[in-house]
Amino acid sequence: MRDPAENGQLALLLEVAGTPKPGNVDREREYENLRFEHFLAGAVGARAGLRAAADGAPIGEAFESAIEGMSDQSGGNTQFGALLVTVPLVRAAAEGRLTPDGASDTVEGTTVADACAFYKAFEHVDVAVDDPPEGLDELDVRRGAAAAEALSERGLTLYDVMALSADRDGVAAEWCSGFERSFEAAGWLREDEGPVYRRASRVFLRLLAAKPDTFVATRNGEAAAEEATQRARAVLDGEADAESLAEEFLACDINPGTTADITAGALFIALERGLEV
Amino acid sequence: MRDPAENGQLALLLEVAGTPKPGNVDREREYENLRFEHFLAGAVGARAGLRAAADGAPIGEAFESAIEGMSDQSGGNTQFGALLVTVPLVRAAAEGRLTPDGASDTVEGTTVADACAFYKAFEHVDVAVDDPPEGLDELDVRRGAAAAEALSERGLTLYDVMALSADRDGVAAEWCSGFERSFEAAGWLREDEGPVYRRASRVFLRLLAAKPDTFVATRNGEAAAEEATQRARAVLDGEADAESLAEEFLACDINPGTTADITAGALFIALERGLEV
Repeated sequence: MRDPAENGQLALLLEVAGTPKPGNVDREREYENLRFEHFLAGAVGARAGLRAAADGAPIGEAFESAIEGMSDQSGGNTQFGALLVTVPLVRAAAEGRLTPDGASDTVEGTTVADACAFYKAFEHVDVAVDDPPEGLDELDVRRGAAAAEALSERGLTLYDVMALSADRDGVAAEWCSGFERSFEAAGWLREDEGPVYRRASRVFLRLLAAKPDTFVATRNGEAAAEEATQRARAVLDGEADAESLAEEFLACDINPGTTADITAGALFIALERGLEV
Repeated sequence: MRDPAENGQLALLLEVAGTPKPGNVDREREYENLRFEHFLAGAVGARAGLRAAADGAPIGEAFESAIEGMSDQSGGNTQFGALLVTVPLVRAAAEGRLTPDGASDTVEGTTVADACAFYKAFEHVDVAVDDPPEGLDELDVRRGAAAAEALSERGLTLYDVMALSADRDGVAAEWCSGFERSFEAAGWLREDEGPVYRRASRVFLRLLAAKPDTFVATRNGEAAAEEATQRARAVLDGEADAESLAEEFLACDINPGTTADITAGALFIALERGLEV
């Protein structure tokens, strides 16, 4: 029986193996400088942080450890968002409360120290992020550990930090909604049939069709994010082909990374609830 | 910096990701009941045993633990041979002696208890094996833990057990030759260029071209194993295409698993010696 830390690692691996996952790295596609093997090494390195999360370390500290380990490969950011979804879920599972309410309690219990550790995690790897909201330059995540004073002065917990960007970051939105989409998609994974890597592909498309990807919005603009969602809908409606869409998104550098992050969370929940591999 | 246990796990993952690897599961190919995702779960489950090997547990016990964890997926035997190569190399690396001599010392130091644990590992998963040599029915690995008495009576260590089948099992031959082919292929991996999953493919083909695969010999006969080696040679000579050969081997169920096991060992050694991912 895999424990939550092991299922967390397996969720990262099954996520990247999900194929086709238009715009993402998958078994058949990769970017020249961001390859499948970088995700494998990222998942290996993240294990210690996932273990810490399962064993009761503070969420921020466990997350930072996972990111530090994940970063020990040359592809750059592979699973930052996926770990931001998965680490609190691993903790909730280890405490026997892997439910929307239990996950909410877990993230609402985070502290200012967790927020500081989260900022420190940005020092390990370059993450594509939006500018902070107007007047909140001091809280720019790109400041890394230097933001600790501003966080302490304002008494911001990691949950508070997430709440500040929940309207424009799909992972932060999960933190502030009881991981609503992750739990829903976990149900889809379990109801589906066949190889997990195909189920992960279908769940990814359903999630993308349901809501524009915030990582695409950040990198390519909101119109591009809206269009990507319409294209995913066309695939689900049988009007377009997922493989062709995968080639096209790759060529245009449309990378729905947040949707992949939520897919990882969904895989973790599904594994904990009995999804067989 | 990954430690030996982590590099052991990563080696398993990079091995299965090596593409094309004719006849083996890779990123683009799999068998209906033995899929890529089974290898991912196998590598996740094997981690605890690899950790035990790095931390100084007896080799047999660490191996059995790795196999027990590896078996926690529905595909059956994914990495039995790869772990039989990798576990002693992880131990040698953890002790700072990852050389042919150091690895030889490691396996020559195994005990009767290690042999018993090795036999017990066969209870966790079905492994395709040859019949035991004439007159050695009591030592048939398929007897599992029931062979303990026969092992004890004869005072056979795990190294002795390997020596008994070194002439017809490529993994046992590694144990009895200072892991000669693994170390040589590790050099090829490091001298090569480009993505690791392509280097792993090329090393696999070179190993197969150099020597018939004993797993193919066991399952398909010696003539088939010799022919597979000739086909790999043709690919290296530019007379045949690796992708076509991969499709053909898959269709004929020619699975050079021992060559893949040695590829995993080579990947581990290369990672320990600085191969960058």
